[in-house]
Amino acid sequence: MDACVLKFGGTSLQDISRIKEIGKRIIKYKKLGKSPVVVVSAMNKTTDELIRMSKEFSLHPDKRELDLMLSTGEQVSASLLAIYLKAKGYKAISFNAFQLPIITDSDFGRAKILSVNVDKIKKHLEMDYIVVITGYQGVVNDTRNITTLGRGGSDTTALAMTLSLGLKSCEIFTDVDGVFTADPEMIPEAQKLNTISYEEMLELAGGGARVMHPRAVLLAQKNDIVIHVKNSFHNNPGTLIKNKQDINKSIVTGVTYTSNEARVSFEKIPVSEHKDYLSRIFRMIAEEEVNINLIAKNHSGDFADLSFAVEKSDLIRLVHLIKLLSQEIRARRVVFDTDFSRVTIIGSGMKNCPGVAFKMFSALQEKQIQIHMISTSDIKVSVFVDNKDLFTAVKAVHEKFELSKGPYRGDLGSTKQAFTS
Amino acid sequence: MDACVLKFGGTSLQDISRIKEIGKRIIKYKKLGKSPVVVVSAMNKTTDELIRMSKEFSLHPDKRELDLMLSTGEQVSASLLAIYLKAKGYKAISFNAFQLPIITDSDFGRAKILSVNVDKIKKHLEMDYIVVITGYQGVVNDTRNITTLGRGGSDTTALAMTLSLGLKSCEIFTDVDGVFTADPEMIPEAQKLNTISYEEMLELAGGGARVMHPRAVLLAQKNDIVIHVKNSFHNNPGTLIKNKQDINKSIVTGVTYTSNEARVSFEKIPVSEHKDYLSRIFRMIAEEEVNINLIAKNHSGDFADLSFAVEKSDLIRLVHLIKLLSQEIRARRVVFDTDFSRVTIIGSGMKNCPGVAFKMFSALQEKQIQIHMISTSDIKVSVFVDNKDLFTAVKAVHEKFELSKGPYRGDLGSTKQAFTS
Repeated sequence: MDACVLKFGGTSLQDISRIKEIGKRIIKYKKLGKSPVVVVSAMNKTTDELIRMSKEFSLHPDKRELDLMLSTGEQVSASLLAIYLKAKGYKAISFNAFQLPIITDSDFGRAKILSVNVDKIKKHLEMDYIVVITGYQGVVNDTRNITTLGRGGSDTTALAMTLSLGLKSCEIFTDVDGVFTADPEMIPEAQKLNTISYEEMLELAGGGARVMHPRAVLLAQKNDIVIHVKNSFHNNPGTLIKNKQDINKSIVTGVTYTSNEARVSFEKIPVSEHKDYLSRIFRMIAEEEVNINLIAKNHSGDFADLSFAVEKSDLIRLVHLIKLLSQEIRARRVVFDTDFSRVTIIGSGMKNCPGVAFKMFSALQEKQIQIHMISTSDIKVSVFVDNKDLFTAVKAVHEKFELSKGPYRGDLGSTKQAFTS
Repeated sequence: MDACVLKFGGTSLQDISRIKEIGKRIIKYKKLGKSPVVVVSAMNKTTDELIRMSKEFSLHPDKRELDLMLSTGEQVSASLLAIYLKAKGYKAISFNAFQLPIITDSDFGRAKILSVNVDKIKKHLEMDYIVVITGYQGVVNDTRNITTLGRGGSDTTALAMTLSLGLKSCEIFTDVDGVFTADPEMIPEAQKLNTISYEEMLELAGGGARVMHPRAVLLAQKNDIVIHVKNSFHNNPGTLIKNKQDINKSIVTGVTYTSNEARVSFEKIPVSEHKDYLSRIFRMIAEEEVNINLIAKNHSGDFADLSFAVEKSDLIRLVHLIKLLSQEIRARRVVFDTDFSRVTIIGSGMKNCPGVAFKMFSALQEKQIQIHMISTSDIKVSVFVDNKDLFTAVKAVHEKFELSKGPYRGDLGSTKQAFTS
């Protein structure tokens, strides 16, 4: 028995004819002697439509009910796929989260998988079945409440399944050819990467790329599972996401972006009066469950300036609280800017090549692009630019590092400029 | 705690605005101090659409997968309703079959409820929740397979729920005002019945009326549960389905019909050669799981003539087998007729009034309508007529018994003509 985990996303399952295509693809694996365990998302748009209906009743629909309802989307695609495979003469069976079960905590809308029972899967693989599993969902052990895993949840299901079956790799089918040096829709010269490390993939996702969800990548990284991202529409090889040490490290692997950043700037906070201002600000943001993409702080004399970036959609919830807090800590004023983009270069070999940030800044400077904030880690450099400069910035950086020839591995020349994270 | 079971069918839940209406209705019960347990069907057309998709892959989709898939329809409407109620400030929670659980046998597509665990329902009613239950489905105890209960399954769920909660009545909301003396779409003079007995309702359903499914009525009858059928679109009182002895028995309560009957006639079966011909014919039909609506048999000398009626849609499956069997038992020939309608009068007081059949036949004769077959029971008389005569027949019978004035209670005059079942 040569089990393999294949995951198909919503765009691969958007209608009856696409489900047929996916079915044929799975049958090919079966014919090659493999025992496929297929993880499916809901058919494209199904989840959005269910959310739309619930929003007609409430802007914040009850989370338990929403999860219970959303979980039906994967059930429909899983059953349809099993029906197709069976109609084609293959043994096939679908299981949902509670039938296996896939046990999660009870954090509705973004539950965490606690355990996956693969007994039924193994038993059916041994009986020559193709097994189809509903992605994106789980069940709480004692209450039998149904949960969903949040965005990218089906990827997480696929990885948890791979791990529980004791496999070392899984295949994630999507609507793109793999991971690229830049968004190929924006930069047509972008190159598909043959391999990328977990760390780079995580930074890419954090920087805006939507190929794989960070949670699934983290799970793969922790357990050294190779993820093969490939296009469900054809047979070309995709991108392998795998352990760093197996990969010829590149200085810059790719460039990614987000275009929905907002900045909050507190100006002239009288530090001596409110020594706890940092904890007060960030506790408030944490309580609102908002992710911070960058923090910049400046200190001169008795006054501190503090800026941080959040997603524009999150800012709306924060504005009122931030204004109140600004008065409490007696900042001279607080400024909101909403038209920022974040451009990020990623490369696991960057750490030992200090010239890389300089090269990036030069590329932007040559195009007269203003850099508003900078953020770095061992394997990335992010800059905040005006939205109007986004395309020019990504293109300039992609060209500067010659990424259309593939990942950038050399020569930074003699320009050595250190940067710290 | 004054629990009540309210069941809403698919037409009551056909879109967002209808779900709101239903929600408002339920809130009225709550405001009156009731503790509603609401059983819901899938939103109108959802089930049909799911079946349509599965049929694109297979004319006979895998039954287990089909049930798993169809069960999602009720989940969506149950969650949406709970979300609405919660948004309106009421405590509300939905449970599906496996969460309670509702345990069934594993006869996919027409499973039988074995037990209903109402612990969670009672607990939540005590905590002031409105509880919403997915109708039409169950779960098999050991395999965790999901089943559906077949046509009218949500009515059965509502009755099983009523019984398990120890209640003596339930309310079934539908898109008609109740049970009528005839199909009001065909006979505008038809009168709504205030009460009808279980037996009469069963015969009405068997005779073609689609208000309530026989299985649900049988469950009510067995446990003496009063069913109140009413219109979900307004507040008028509907029809009470209850124990016979509580009702002033009428000779003819209503007239109903089907228009999709087929007849199979074996002519001149040489009885002495094949003494087992009856068992052979009906075993074959039973094995094909086809219901027989009527059997007529004639015997003269060494030959027997045998006719029986089945639904036209079932005939297609039988034709080939019947032809083979006809040769085996050496019938002179076998004839198939497909354009029959069945018109049935029902009345629990009919038994002691032998003139009722005569009066029905007279009504048809006066309109020159040919009667092809007759079938009777203690509380019904059915006749088979040509499809072309259906409307005239129903109208003639409805008028003859003056049903536009309500159920017929008398006077059959001196014309006494016995009939036997």
